[in-house]
Amino acid sequence: MSLLLALDLVGVFAFAVDGALTAVRAARLDLFGVITLGMITALGGGIVRDILLGDLPPATFSDYRYLLVAASGGLVAFTWRLERLASAMTVLDAAGLGLFAVTGASKALEFGLGPLQAVILGGITGVGGGTLRDMFIARVPTILTTGLYAVPALLGATITVVADQLGVWSAPAAVVAALACFSLRMAGVRWDWHAPRAIGWQD
Amino acid sequence: MSLLLALDLVGVFAFAVDGALTAVRAARLDLFGVITLGMITALGGGIVRDILLGDLPPATFSDYRYLLVAASGGLVAFTWRLERLASAMTVLDAAGLGLFAVTGASKALEFGLGPLQAVILGGITGVGGGTLRDMFIARVPTILTTGLYAVPALLGATITVVADQLGVWSAPAAVVAALACFSLRMAGVRWDWHAPRAIGWQD
Amino acid sequence: MSLLLALDLVGVFAFAVDGALTAVRAARLDLFGVITLGMITALGGGIVRDILLGDLPPATFSDYRYLLVAASGGLVAFTWRLERLASAMTVLDAAGLGLFAVTGASKALEFGLGPLQAVILGGITGVGGGTLRDMFIARVPTILTTGLYAVPALLGATITVVADQLGVWSAPAAVVAALACFSLRMAGVRWDWHAPRAIGWQD
Repeated sequence: MSLLLALDLVGVFAFAVDGALTAVRAARLDLFGVITLGMITALGGGIVRDILLGDLPPATFSDYRYLLVAASGGLVAFTWRLERLASAMTVLDAAGLGLFAVTGASKALEFGLGPLQAVILGGITGVGGGTLRDMFIARVPTILTTGLYAVPALLGATITVVADQLGVWSAPAAVVAALACFSLRMAGVRWDWHAPRAIGWQD
Repeated sequence: MSLLLALDLVGVFAFAVDGALTAVRAARLDLFGVITLGMITALGGGIVRDILLGDLPPATFSDYRYLLVAASGGLVAFTWRLERLASAMTVLDAAGLGLFAVTGASKALEFGLGPLQAVILGGITGVGGGTLRDMFIARVPTILTTGLYAVPALLGATITVVADQLGVWSAPAAVVAALACFSLRMAGVRWDWHAPRAIGWQD
Repeated sequence: MSLLLALDLVGVFAFAVDGALTAVRAARLDLFGVITLGMITALGGGIVRDILLGDLPPATFSDYRYLLVAASGGLVAFTWRLERLASAMTVLDAAGLGLFAVTGASKALEFGLGPLQAVILGGITGVGGGTLRDMFIARVPTILTTGLYAVPALLGATITVVADQLGVWSAPAAVVAALACFSLRMAGVRWDWHAPRAIGWQD
């Protein structure tokens, strides 16, 4: 199994559990709704990435493992001791964010995109699943309301692209890039970092 | 006219009327809004299908009949005796669901996708139009809130794929598959079937 | 720089400022949210156009100028005297609408689509950015609630297609087409024109 595929599948699982927990807690959906939102969250980022790269049908459809891992994540979240996992939603979302930012940037480079474009596409891949999840439950997406959500994804993608340009791209480099994104995101949540708002504004 | 095209156009008309009625009743839009939401509902599933299959531009854009049928459906809903059709919204949505599930799965097989992928793509094609309709009027999509919405679509797609694998794919088989989806969806609405919700959950 | 690219970049800038102002006023987002919504609004229409045409990766990703202009528009809106620009939101949105309707129709013709399809694709390109903007902040899109939003875009696209068919397509023709769309949109806003609603409807 290639490095890209392995990282992708771990990201799919993390986002599937996260999306399914959101479905249970935020929207109180039934079993089918839980699995559906889990799969949308898990597969959304990769599908958006593959559409933008023109790699169609998306990997999700040419490799059944994506569908199985995504569905399993939703089932696990629904049937296991959900209460214990609840505090893990932010952690899972941050993990998926980092993994997909790396695979998105890496796949974009493989497809011949320039460095700046690969960073942006990595960022989109990272935030795509969570953004679709929020739009499906009619909630303003995290990417708009939380300062440090896109930035960590762009950081992970940037490290990926720099490592590639320096010729040191490898499994450890991928883990470092994903961990950097994950850590920055978690630090942002922990200390509630956000960017300045426009001041002196009157409606 | 091919079987796939004929079923697609009937599905387009059903969804166009359904989307237009939703625009009138749920969102009280004006004539342009009604026709626009009708067209989004009617064409959304097929466009998503064709994007995921990489069959671009989508059939909608290479064959003007899709646009004309979709616009006609919206106009009909707006100008005729709307009150009598109101109870028909669920019926029209279920009809579009079944027809698109079948054409989605069938087209996926034509494009060489595996059986599992064809079933999923059929399901996405079936639920796509109604899901876009709901997202446009800022409503949580039916697919998340109603247990038996994705499952009937997956059933119709599965019958399509099985018939194809058995070598008995034909117009009658397509009608049977669409009817099976339609009947299961209507039964689910009639008796309010839904899947279990997570229990013992505390916020 | 080609005509298409120049018009596209002006449209990108107008929509980026418009989206960023919406983020500040309607959703009170922080700096990252403002730039993100600005970029979604600015690049959304062109990305949807290129996906539907199968021209992937989208121009946005193969030409870094799109990203830079979009990000600059968001920054400008955030840092300059926002109050003075506030009344300009409708104007900027109308300008982007006209420019993208023209580039969308023109690019569709280049890719060999028929006249009717090129008009529709021009309309989708024009309204795409604003529609994504509204969906991201969980607001029913302008295209559904405002009668004269899609119609001006379709007018600009129609003039583009007619000029092309008559063999008089040129930079002045493009400006006329974009201005016609812009003027009709602004007139619709100024005098509050809208289409009839369905009457005698009871819930």
